[in-house]
Amino acid sequence: MKKPVRVAAMVKILSDHPGRLYSTSYFCERFGVAKSTVSEDTALAASAMRETGSGCIETLPGAGGGIRYVPHITDAQCRTVQEALCRRLQEPSRLMGGGILYVADIVYDPSLAADIARVFARRFRDTGASFVATIETKGIPLAFLTAHYMGIPLAVVRRRHQISEGPTMSINYFSASTEKMQQMSLSKKAVTPGSHAVIIDDFMRAGGSIRGIAELLSEFDIQVSGIGVAVSTAQPAAKKIHTYTSLVTLQGVDEEQGIIDVVPNDALLHTGASI
Amino acid sequence: MKKPVRVAAMVKILSDHPGRLYSTSYFCERFGVAKSTVSEDTALAASAMRETGSGCIETLPGAGGGIRYVPHITDAQCRTVQEALCRRLQEPSRLMGGGILYVADIVYDPSLAADIARVFARRFRDTGASFVATIETKGIPLAFLTAHYMGIPLAVVRRRHQISEGPTMSINYFSASTEKMQQMSLSKKAVTPGSHAVIIDDFMRAGGSIRGIAELLSEFDIQVSGIGVAVSTAQPAAKKIHTYTSLVTLQGVDEEQGIIDVVPNDALLHTGASI
Repeated sequence: MKKPVRVAAMVKILSDHPGRLYSTSYFCERFGVAKSTVSEDTALAASAMRETGSGCIETLPGAGGGIRYVPHITDAQCRTVQEALCRRLQEPSRLMGGGILYVADIVYDPSLAADIARVFARRFRDTGASFVATIETKGIPLAFLTAHYMGIPLAVVRRRHQISEGPTMSINYFSASTEKMQQMSLSKKAVTPGSHAVIIDDFMRAGGSIRGIAELLSEFDIQVSGIGVAVSTAQPAAKKIHTYTSLVTLQGVDEEQGIIDVVPNDALLHTGASI
Repeated sequence: MKKPVRVAAMVKILSDHPGRLYSTSYFCERFGVAKSTVSEDTALAASAMRETGSGCIETLPGAGGGIRYVPHITDAQCRTVQEALCRRLQEPSRLMGGGILYVADIVYDPSLAADIARVFARRFRDTGASFVATIETKGIPLAFLTAHYMGIPLAVVRRRHQISEGPTMSINYFSASTEKMQQMSLSKKAVTPGSHAVIIDDFMRAGGSIRGIAELLSEFDIQVSGIGVAVSTAQPAAKKIHTYTSLVTLQGVDEEQGIIDVVPNDALLHTGASI
């Protein structure tokens, strides 16, 4: 196999499984080459990752070591994602009445959702989170892809108790968008007590449901080490959670004029990761 | 930039966006090389994809043409995925009583879910589907990744009418697992009348909810050109849908002995794609 083919194959294998550790001998056997060749190839693969701005290759030394792909997104690419999200959100046809925006097509668009998830994965990769948590339904693709890029599993909080979830913990919380008390529950099997989690959702108004998820997790002695939402609203200014990362802020909506005022969050990549 | 770096960067860019068409001039500008060099690089990138068994590069000729990544998975890799899924399902701790299995950790595991989605994407790539449909909640990650690999969007059928979905079509259907009539609804904005869809779900017993999704889609004059489920049950043998693809079949469960009898579906890659 020619060197360019081998290096490109290595990039494909690594990037298909973010966070998975591959030993040098895996590539020696797979490609039928010496360890020194794998080292050279790894350096070239790392250059290719850097060149696309889409990640880096981490080397873990020692007997149990190896190399793994850590997804990344550059500052400029982040900005492009934020602007793309703003442009999509500004389409007047999203106005559903009552200031509600239709966003399902955005969060279910694999290409844009993947870009947003890459931003979250970059933001939270050093938080020590062992899983990503979200609440059904629309946040699932973003949360799932963030988990994929971070190489950790997803846990989904349900709005109703499900027989297929086994023993569950439930809490009640006040939802500002529906203006009533709601229930949420999480399967005991979905989480490991004492661990850390990152919470991801598509849309945040007052933060009631995210606060609820955090409370539910604390019942399992799980700490929240990061909160990411694609869109947050400027109002109400006082949120029920204190630290979160949002890609864009919905300043307001003028239904008469069909204007949706949404701006990129400039602080996205510069604020502290922990809460 | 060295040739191996350039070829590997091309593979990374293409595979991050399945189905997206990139013109030759995109790579000429990005890498600062001549068209002939891009052609050589494309051939090497295609070799690397083939080598990993993870896809191919399709060339579309003409002025609006270019190259794009079409994900693939080999027969041997499919078998490995089926066996991994069986092994995971056989863990006795999944038994929730009443023959119900806990499967959330499997469908929310990004690595296994990605492999299952690759199988579906291979199976349904020639169906002409313009979107993937599923019903909330647990099928979403599989359906979303299948959509990602097919380069098409996802539409999620809701179990309750949601204010944020705009005008919706609703139907009632009989759910065998809950033994009662249920409602499902789909936003008019989520679909294009007259198109084709692939339905993906995690688990199928009698097929009532998938039949429901198909009926709901038919209200929008949308034809179902493929149905894929990760796990189907052997009983009831008479399903409410006639043609579907499942990775594995749950033969039965012995709760006394803690035995879960699940086998790979041998016909997975050989049956017709259309229904």
